[in-house]
Amino acid sequence: VITLTTDFGLDAPFVGIMKGVILARLPQARIIDLTHQIEPYWPAEAGFWLARAYGWFARGTVHVAVVDPGVGTARGILGAAAAGHVFLAPDNGLLAPLLAAHPQALVVRLGEGVSTRLGVTQVSSTFHGRDLFCPAAAELAAGRCTLTDLGEPVTAWAASAVGPPSTAGAQIDGVVIAIDRYGNLISNIDAALLTGLDSPLVWAAGRALRLARTYGDVARGELLALINSSGVVEVAVREGSAAAVLGMARGAPVTVQDGARIAGAPGR
Amino acid sequence: VITLTTDFGLDAPFVGIMKGVILARLPQARIIDLTHQIEPYWPAEAGFWLARAYGWFARGTVHVAVVDPGVGTARGILGAAAAGHVFLAPDNGLLAPLLAAHPQALVVRLGEGVSTRLGVTQVSSTFHGRDLFCPAAAELAAGRCTLTDLGEPVTAWAASAVGPPSTAGAQIDGVVIAIDRYGNLISNIDAALLTGLDSPLVWAAGRALRLARTYGDVARGELLALINSSGVVEVAVREGSAAAVLGMARGAPVTVQDGARIAGAPGR
Amino acid sequence: VITLTTDFGLDAPFVGIMKGVILARLPQARIIDLTHQIEPYWPAEAGFWLARAYGWFARGTVHVAVVDPGVGTARGILGAAAAGHVFLAPDNGLLAPLLAAHPQALVVRLGEGVSTRLGVTQVSSTFHGRDLFCPAAAELAAGRCTLTDLGEPVTAWAASAVGPPSTAGAQIDGVVIAIDRYGNLISNIDAALLTGLDSPLVWAAGRALRLARTYGDVARGELLALINSSGVVEVAVREGSAAAVLGMARGAPVTVQDGARIAGAPGR
Repeated sequence: VITLTTDFGLDAPFVGIMKGVILARLPQARIIDLTHQIEPYWPAEAGFWLARAYGWFARGTVHVAVVDPGVGTARGILGAAAAGHVFLAPDNGLLAPLLAAHPQALVVRLGEGVSTRLGVTQVSSTFHGRDLFCPAAAELAAGRCTLTDLGEPVTAWAASAVGPPSTAGAQIDGVVIAIDRYGNLISNIDAALLTGLDSPLVWAAGRALRLARTYGDVARGELLALINSSGVVEVAVREGSAAAVLGMARGAPVTVQDGARIAGAPGR
Repeated sequence: VITLTTDFGLDAPFVGIMKGVILARLPQARIIDLTHQIEPYWPAEAGFWLARAYGWFARGTVHVAVVDPGVGTARGILGAAAAGHVFLAPDNGLLAPLLAAHPQALVVRLGEGVSTRLGVTQVSSTFHGRDLFCPAAAELAAGRCTLTDLGEPVTAWAASAVGPPSTAGAQIDGVVIAIDRYGNLISNIDAALLTGLDSPLVWAAGRALRLARTYGDVARGELLALINSSGVVEVAVREGSAAAVLGMARGAPVTVQDGARIAGAPGR
Repeated sequence: VITLTTDFGLDAPFVGIMKGVILARLPQARIIDLTHQIEPYWPAEAGFWLARAYGWFARGTVHVAVVDPGVGTARGILGAAAAGHVFLAPDNGLLAPLLAAHPQALVVRLGEGVSTRLGVTQVSSTFHGRDLFCPAAAELAAGRCTLTDLGEPVTAWAASAVGPPSTAGAQIDGVVIAIDRYGNLISNIDAALLTGLDSPLVWAAGRALRLARTYGDVARGELLALINSSGVVEVAVREGSAAAVLGMARGAPVTVQDGARIAGAPGR
C-alpha cells in the first residue's frame, strides 16, 4: 500500500500521472489518496494529517507527501522509517510532527545519485512527485531497495513553519492547522495536553467554549468545541461552518485555558 | 467490492483513512468512491444516489453510506440486504428510497455489542465511518460475518426528511434532490410516474418545459427537461447551468403536469 | 490499467458508476483517474492532458476520455491505437492533439452495432461513458475484443476547436489550455517550438517574462514563465496564482517571441 498526500488538487492529472508511474513499476501496488487538497504551499497541514492518519494503515505502508514550494531548488528530500511505516517528503518541515513523535525514527536524506539508483533518466525541476518521490516509493514498496540504499542517515532536518502548541501554566496556545469540508476548525492541540486541566475552556475568535462530546450535544447552528476523531481540539458549529461563523482561517490562534481557574480572555 | 458515499469531501483525509481501515482488514478489497460531495448533513441526496447507482455494480457489493449529522447520538445504524447487495448507513432516512423499492429486504439494526464483534477497541463519538461502518463493511465483504451476526432484524426505521414525489391526478410534485457539476437540476421524479401523461410538461421556477431526448436537442444556452441516465426528470441548460439560470437549489420544487390537459402554472 | 478523463466532476456518482461497470466486466481492472475536472464542455483541455499524460502509463493501458457535449446526437465515437496505448473518446476534436503526434495511429469509428457487440441492451442518450465507453474499455483491456471488432478504420475525424499554436517568423501564438489548482497558466506551446529562439520572451496579458527554471528562481509573489513538467510553456506566480494576478482564463492568448530580436509587445 502506498498513500499520497499533496496540494496538487484534482484539476490537472498530476495525481493520476504519479499513479501511472507507480503502477508501471509495481503493478500490484494499492494506492490510496489521503488528500490532495492541502492548503497550497503549506507543508504544515500535510505534516499534521500525515502524523494523524498513517496509523490507520497496515504496517509496511509507504506514505508519500508532496507539498513542495521549493521543488527544484536546493531543498533536500527525506525518507523516514517509523512505527513500521515508511515516509517520503521534501525536507521543508513537513515531517516534523511525525519525527517529533518518533525520536527513534531512521531518517535519511536522498543522495545525489538517487535518480540513477532509481533508473530515472530525466528529472524535471518542477515535478519531483512524478520523477523522484513515486519511483522511490514504488521501489521501497516492492522491496527492491531500502531507505539506506537511497541516502545517508541524517540527524537534523528542517523545522516546521508551524511549531507545536506552547504551554504556559494552565494555558495552551495552538493554531488552526486544517479546516475540513464542513468548516470545522481543527487545531494542532493534542488532547493529551489537556490532561492537567480541571475544566478546559477553548477560546477561538474571542468566544469561549466548553468541551462537548459530539456535534449533536448542542442545538443546530450552535458553536461547540470537542476532542475530535484525530485526537485534537476542534471548534465546530452543529450542522454549520465554524470557519464561516467565526471568520477564521488556517493559522488562526486557538487557546485552551483551565476554565475552573481563569475567567477572562487569554493574553497572547 | 465496497463502495463509499459520504458528505466528507476530499479536503481532509477522512476518506483515505476509511480505506486504510478496510485494507488493513481485507487487503484485496476493491474500494470505489461513489461520491463524497453529498450536500453536507443531507442524507436524502445520498439515499437518492445510492438507490440509483448500486445496480451498476456486481452482486455481492457492499455499499457504505455515511451522511450522519447525528453521529455519536442515540441514532442507530442499519444494515440491509437487497437485490444481492449489502448496504450500511445511519438510521436517519438515508436508506428509505432503497428500502421502499425493496419491501422484501432484510434489515438489521446494529446491536450494542457490534464493536466487540468487530474487534474495535475504541469507538469515537464523531467518526463512525472509520470505527464502525468500514470495519463492518470489510468483515461482511470478507464473508467473515453476516448482517444477522451484527444486529437483530427490524421492521421499522427512520423516514427520509424528503418524501417520495406526491401524485394528485395528472400532477406530480417532486423536488431537486441533487445538482451535478454542470448545474443540472436532478429531481426525485421517476420516469415511471409519467407513464400516464400524454404530453408531460415540467415546471421549474415558473418555467414550463417539454421533454427533450438529449441536451443537443435544443440550442446552446437553452433550457430543457429530459429523463436522464438515472431514470428521473432533470432540468438542464445545454452547455450551461440550470441551477444558475433558474436560481434553484436542492429541495426546490419540480412539478410535472399533463401538458395536453392543463395550461397554467401548477398550484402547490 | 484503464484511465478515465472527464468533465463530470465528483459531485455526483457518475465516475463511480463507470468504475462499477468496468469492474463488473473485468474485476481485476486497475482504474486510474486522470482528472474529472476538465472545463465543462471543452474537449480541448482533455485532449491536451491526455496527449501529455498517457506516456507515464505502461504500454497496453486503455484511456477513456469523455468530454462530450454532443452525447446522444449524431457525433461518432473514436477508438485509436498509438504508441502501444488504446484511446476512446467522442469524435469532437478531443483526440486531435494525440493523433497529430501519431500519424501512424490506427483509428476506428465505433459502428452502429457496437452496443450489441458489447452486450449492452439499453443505451441512454445522455451517459455514453457508462453505456458505451466503459463497456468497450473493459472488453479491450480484457483482450476480449480489438478496436477493429468495434468499428471500421477511418482516416478523417473532427478537428479540435483549439488548433495547435501558430508560428510566424520568430513569434509563436498559443493559448492557455489548462489552469491547475495553483492558478498556473498552462499553454499549448510545446518547448520544441522554442528551439530556434535565442532568448525566448513569453507574453501574457501584456507582461513579458523571461524563462526561469523553477518557481523558486524568483521572489515570492513574482511572475515567471517556465517550461513545465509537461513540456509546455507555463506562466506562474511563485506561491501565488497567475490566473488571479493576470486575470486570465482558458483560451486566453500566450505568445512567445525571440527577446534578442524584438522588443515591443507582439501584434496578434
